[in-house]
Amino acid sequence: MPDWIIHEDKYEEADGVLLGNRYLVGNGYVGIRGTLEEYKADKLPAINLAGIYDRVGDNWREPINLPNACYSYLRVDGDIYTLPEREPVSHRMELSYRHGLFSRTTTWHTARGNITLSTERFASMANVHIIGMKFAITADFHADVELLTGIDTDVWDINGPHLENKVMEDENGSLRVIATTHEQHKTVVVCESVKVNYAGESKTTVKDDKILHRLFFVTKPGEKYTAEKFVTIFTSNDGPDPASKAVSLNRLSAERGYEALKDEHVAVWEELWSHSEVELTGDEQAETALNYSLYHLHSIAPRHTDSLSIPARGLSGQTYKGAVFWDTEMFMLDFFLMTDPKTARILMKYRIDTLDGAMKKAASYGYDGAFYAWESQEGGYDACSDYNVTDVFTGRPMRTFFKDKQIHISAAIVYGICRYAEWTGDNSILDHNGVKTVIECAKFYYSALLKHVSGRDIYELHDVIGPDEYHERVNNNGYTNRMAKFTFESAVKVIKNAMDEGTLPKEYDGLKLVEEFTDAAEKIYIPQPSAEPGHVGVIPQFDGYFDKEDASLSQVRDRIINEKEYWGGAYGIASDTQIIKQADVVTWLNLFSREHDREELRTNWEYYEPRTEHGSSLSAGMYAMLACKIGEPDKAYPFFIKSASADLRGGGKEWAGLIYIGGTHPAAAGAAYMTAVEGFAGITIENGKPVCHPSLPKSIKAMKFKIFYQGKEYLVNIEGDKGTIEGL
Amino acid sequence: MPDWIIHEDKYEEADGVLLGNRYLVGNGYVGIRGTLEEYKADKLPAINLAGIYDRVGDNWREPINLPNACYSYLRVDGDIYTLPEREPVSHRMELSYRHGLFSRTTTWHTARGNITLSTERFASMANVHIIGMKFAITADFHADVELLTGIDTDVWDINGPHLENKVMEDENGSLRVIATTHEQHKTVVVCESVKVNYAGESKTTVKDDKILHRLFFVTKPGEKYTAEKFVTIFTSNDGPDPASKAVSLNRLSAERGYEALKDEHVAVWEELWSHSEVELTGDEQAETALNYSLYHLHSIAPRHTDSLSIPARGLSGQTYKGAVFWDTEMFMLDFFLMTDPKTARILMKYRIDTLDGAMKKAASYGYDGAFYAWESQEGGYDACSDYNVTDVFTGRPMRTFFKDKQIHISAAIVYGICRYAEWTGDNSILDHNGVKTVIECAKFYYSALLKHVSGRDIYELHDVIGPDEYHERVNNNGYTNRMAKFTFESAVKVIKNAMDEGTLPKEYDGLKLVEEFTDAAEKIYIPQPSAEPGHVGVIPQFDGYFDKEDASLSQVRDRIINEKEYWGGAYGIASDTQIIKQADVVTWLNLFSREHDREELRTNWEYYEPRTEHGSSLSAGMYAMLACKIGEPDKAYPFFIKSASADLRGGGKEWAGLIYIGGTHPAAAGAAYMTAVEGFAGITIENGKPVCHPSLPKSIKAMKFKIFYQGKEYLVNIEGDKGTIEGL
Repeated sequence: MPDWIIHEDKYEEADGVLLGNRYLVGNGYVGIRGTLEEYKADKLPAINLAGIYDRVGDNWREPINLPNACYSYLRVDGDIYTLPEREPVSHRMELSYRHGLFSRTTTWHTARGNITLSTERFASMANVHIIGMKFAITADFHADVELLTGIDTDVWDINGPHLENKVMEDENGSLRVIATTHEQHKTVVVCESVKVNYAGESKTTVKDDKILHRLFFVTKPGEKYTAEKFVTIFTSNDGPDPASKAVSLNRLSAERGYEALKDEHVAVWEELWSHSEVELTGDEQAETALNYSLYHLHSIAPRHTDSLSIPARGLSGQTYKGAVFWDTEMFMLDFFLMTDPKTARILMKYRIDTLDGAMKKAASYGYDGAFYAWESQEGGYDACSDYNVTDVFTGRPMRTFFKDKQIHISAAIVYGICRYAEWTGDNSILDHNGVKTVIECAKFYYSALLKHVSGRDIYELHDVIGPDEYHERVNNNGYTNRMAKFTFESAVKVIKNAMDEGTLPKEYDGLKLVEEFTDAAEKIYIPQPSAEPGHVGVIPQFDGYFDKEDASLSQVRDRIINEKEYWGGAYGIASDTQIIKQADVVTWLNLFSREHDREELRTNWEYYEPRTEHGSSLSAGMYAMLACKIGEPDKAYPFFIKSASADLRGGGKEWAGLIYIGGTHPAAAGAAYMTAVEGFAGITIENGKPVCHPSLPKSIKAMKFKIFYQGKEYLVNIEGDKGTIEGL
Repeated sequence: MPDWIIHEDKYEEADGVLLGNRYLVGNGYVGIRGTLEEYKADKLPAINLAGIYDRVGDNWREPINLPNACYSYLRVDGDIYTLPEREPVSHRMELSYRHGLFSRTTTWHTARGNITLSTERFASMANVHIIGMKFAITADFHADVELLTGIDTDVWDINGPHLENKVMEDENGSLRVIATTHEQHKTVVVCESVKVNYAGESKTTVKDDKILHRLFFVTKPGEKYTAEKFVTIFTSNDGPDPASKAVSLNRLSAERGYEALKDEHVAVWEELWSHSEVELTGDEQAETALNYSLYHLHSIAPRHTDSLSIPARGLSGQTYKGAVFWDTEMFMLDFFLMTDPKTARILMKYRIDTLDGAMKKAASYGYDGAFYAWESQEGGYDACSDYNVTDVFTGRPMRTFFKDKQIHISAAIVYGICRYAEWTGDNSILDHNGVKTVIECAKFYYSALLKHVSGRDIYELHDVIGPDEYHERVNNNGYTNRMAKFTFESAVKVIKNAMDEGTLPKEYDGLKLVEEFTDAAEKIYIPQPSAEPGHVGVIPQFDGYFDKEDASLSQVRDRIINEKEYWGGAYGIASDTQIIKQADVVTWLNLFSREHDREELRTNWEYYEPRTEHGSSLSAGMYAMLACKIGEPDKAYPFFIKSASADLRGGGKEWAGLIYIGGTHPAAAGAAYMTAVEGFAGITIENGKPVCHPSLPKSIKAMKFKIFYQGKEYLVNIEGDKGTIEGL
């Protein structure tokens, strides 16, 4: 049995940034990077806040990092003891991913003896406005100790500073920072107080952007000195007077004490696991990696609100602009549908509530309907820049087309909404605005359809980017066209249903739309398997794909001049080859596998896999899932492990030039879940009920997990190639 | 009165390559670069042959340079006297551009006294297979002279060597080189013989790829020693047994002697000038530049055949692959229509005869009809590479789209054919194949037309490059769409006419085509003047043009990192700005000026001119012509001088990395002619007759020239704002 703990047993300064992601704790409201308490901004600590974005100057808009209320360090006999400045005798860092508890224990040698600092912290799942912290100090001598803890307002920002008018206050020993965001002048309040269990003095000091308690005491050898710290956070998004709320909750928290708060927090986690834990008997590595992945998904789920989504890098910082991508619908949604449908609803509600932004975006490009943001922030604002990549050879920004050509995004929204309604049976999502969302997405594609004046009566989508971003501005990307067809078909169903129920929003001419979308769904061109030698049975990713150079991945890699150079764009080393960034045709075939026979699925998997760089963490999961569908769980397995370990192992691209782009990979986590549950266990719906068709990889002997389907929970038990599902 | 002579009065080694273009002589069959006789391949001499192309390995196909039969040098008292090795006392080089005579005179100081070498040469206009040369040597002492002259087979090639199986022979003192081309094994024969007018010995020697006469004599002080040399050239394109033809013509030439051949040659030039000279009273600079430009056009006109066109760099070498561009139809054709209609026919016949190549190209891109080569070589083969530019930052080839997206080329062919037929009245060009050419070009555009499934019933052309090559892959380039419309309209006329005459090729359904092309001509989207502030009345060059950054030319220039970097492509410094390479909307408005009022023409001229880099020699002429049409001849004047002086002054881009891309600029020459005749003189056709509407720039007081129109010649006399045209 795994112990649900990951740990580091020694200190490596260089790993600090990576561990910040791996040891993250969060509650969907904030994410606290797994950095040490003494770290200042240059070491990338962060209490990353969900759902508030800010922009300074011409830089891109990004989520804000709160004043660092975890900031703390130790002074012994007048000397500062921090990492990495003072080499430790021993150091251990731990994350209980069962319960979202971060802890560290560090022992230093001083001139007079050894001293040990332990801390523990959590972002409360029971009340997302609370962060709990605990300190424990022991020394083997009579040490003059000063524990400094408070709030560091000098936070790590990529494009900050975002917080202005910072006020640092001490009210009866409770410290607080009140600030406003630069752009929208939202108020942000961080409040903290400390309770100590020993006799000593304390002072408050303000220095270098920090407001700190100075807690003095003298240790007796072998005795443990503990302190509890309570951090409370409110913003003006949480209603009026966030300062009072923060103060009052802080007082309450201190009254209840650390252990009580922690118990409540742990209880929520246990409740979550009771629905979502996946047992993988026989393969502890896989079981750990998978549940650790689910831990991350739980930690960033926005349960505190009724309409918000999950950024592509979770709450691990400001990278990827804290923006929401298609990752949510295509990779994370299924986990929540099956284990926590309420959260799934919150995610989809975010899309419906940002329809207005999508309609504005569509109009700005001359389209009808709704063109969702490629990188969605508040209100559906598209944070994606026209220049998303820097040319390493010239230092110039490169015009990229993710924002304007990756039109498959709107179909992902429709896919998510329809899948939510279908899987949960909760048709209330398709209320006035839900129906509108689906229709507007279909209208968007309808307005993008082109046909040749001469020739066959087919409809085409030109000048797009598919999931494989290395090939820009292509015609008839199969994935995009198939998803547009899906959108048309879904809209027809939704409209007919709304017409039957008399709920179709008045502004629509239902019959006309049904006619148009039915026609579009019939005539939109879907690329077919090739009959040409060399790629018989392979579906071209886009028009002319097979005309590209068929160079091997290693040949292409050998052409790299600068290791940071971009592989895509107009002249990237992959651009004129068949090498692709990530699953594209394979993503399509995975979603619509029932429309293709197994041989066709296999042919395409085998053609595309060696031509895929897997330069996106989204790639491996699609290959894993499709491998399961062609009856090859052992081929799927390494891709599954890769997805499940994306944050456990790290090793993805962490830096682009001087800009940090690392962070957690919740989409990969979601893909790992789907591979396990929909792939290995083969969960699918037949005759309105979940069934399983197990196909386990060699190392996994048995699986056990629960899923929700249409409001009912089921227990799935699989042993070898036999499986049972029982309603609970 | 200009003396029709240009000259250099001292020797500058560094100018050698530039002067090679400026002092070119040619006769449409060969062009002889204006380099010195002693120059070896590294100094870029060339006898460039029209109409035979060759390819070696994966390099691009290019025209061949013949064995250099002008190669000659002097030895005095045993020492070699050549430039630049031996510094001269004086040096003069001359070109009579009245008669296509190149000459040089160089005096060297030797240990025993001064010696002077003079040479003269011409590529015979009377018989294009003949090159005549004359040597004159005088010394002020008893010099032991050895004149070495013969054939250097080590020729300058960009992508050679192209000539194989070289045989060097001496038959009775007549030297010849017979070789075959690498790819098509065409035979090339260069033959030469020398006649001396003094007593001396001679030997033949073969050394280092050269076969040479060694002509020995001793000078008497002050006495002139002359020698005549006759070079004859035939290839297997000229019929069977080119060797015999060359030998026999060589013998005949020698019998007739240099002066007789020169007289015939000069007579042809006089005949050409009698129809084409343009007198510009009051502005000698302009007059010289213009007639010098016409000299170049005459020198490269393929009068020796009935179907050939003029490469974009004339016969000045292998640059631009010796390929034929839209330059011919859009810039050079008018000069020949008005002064030498037979040559105009030959040029257009070339396009009709290469229809097959254009149809193959169209099919290879999935189009119907005829998509002419962007860079046309033998048989209409498109020499344009998919990678036409090297990235200076990475050294990698850059994917360019000139070949596949510059679809306006086919319209230029139709424009040329129709304009030829209309201007000359020679409808025989629209025979079976002529009609077919027009129809196939229209079919090409018809197959490229797109329409949105929803929205307005208009037809669009997407993903093209217009004349401004800096902006790739744009939608609805106004020039392209208007030219496509012209093509549809022309095809309708041509088809109706052929149906009336019962000459429509059987394979066509005339009624159906008329219906389709009429519909297409009506519905094709033609961008309209903007109503938006900042560019009211300006026609956007393509969809979204005004959304590009409106940076000034100098701002954009300041962004250059490497002076050789490409301004266009996906990431060039101009690509995301409104800075354009060359006239684009202005080219359209110039061609169709009657469809726009003068204010609209002016607004567009004034908007686009400051945004034009004029990075192509084709640009200035279009601005000059349109300036005339808005009644601004003085604004036109500097652009006119720029066009007319393109080869006289040089200064264009001569090198791209290590590859020479310079050469002559016949399209600029043609544009200068059009500006003078159609702009300043305002020649146009009204009621079936040529009329003039003079609008002279200040410096030009009067103009006098002749033009042909529909088989009849007219004399145009302009003084100030008055003009007369009289039939001759």
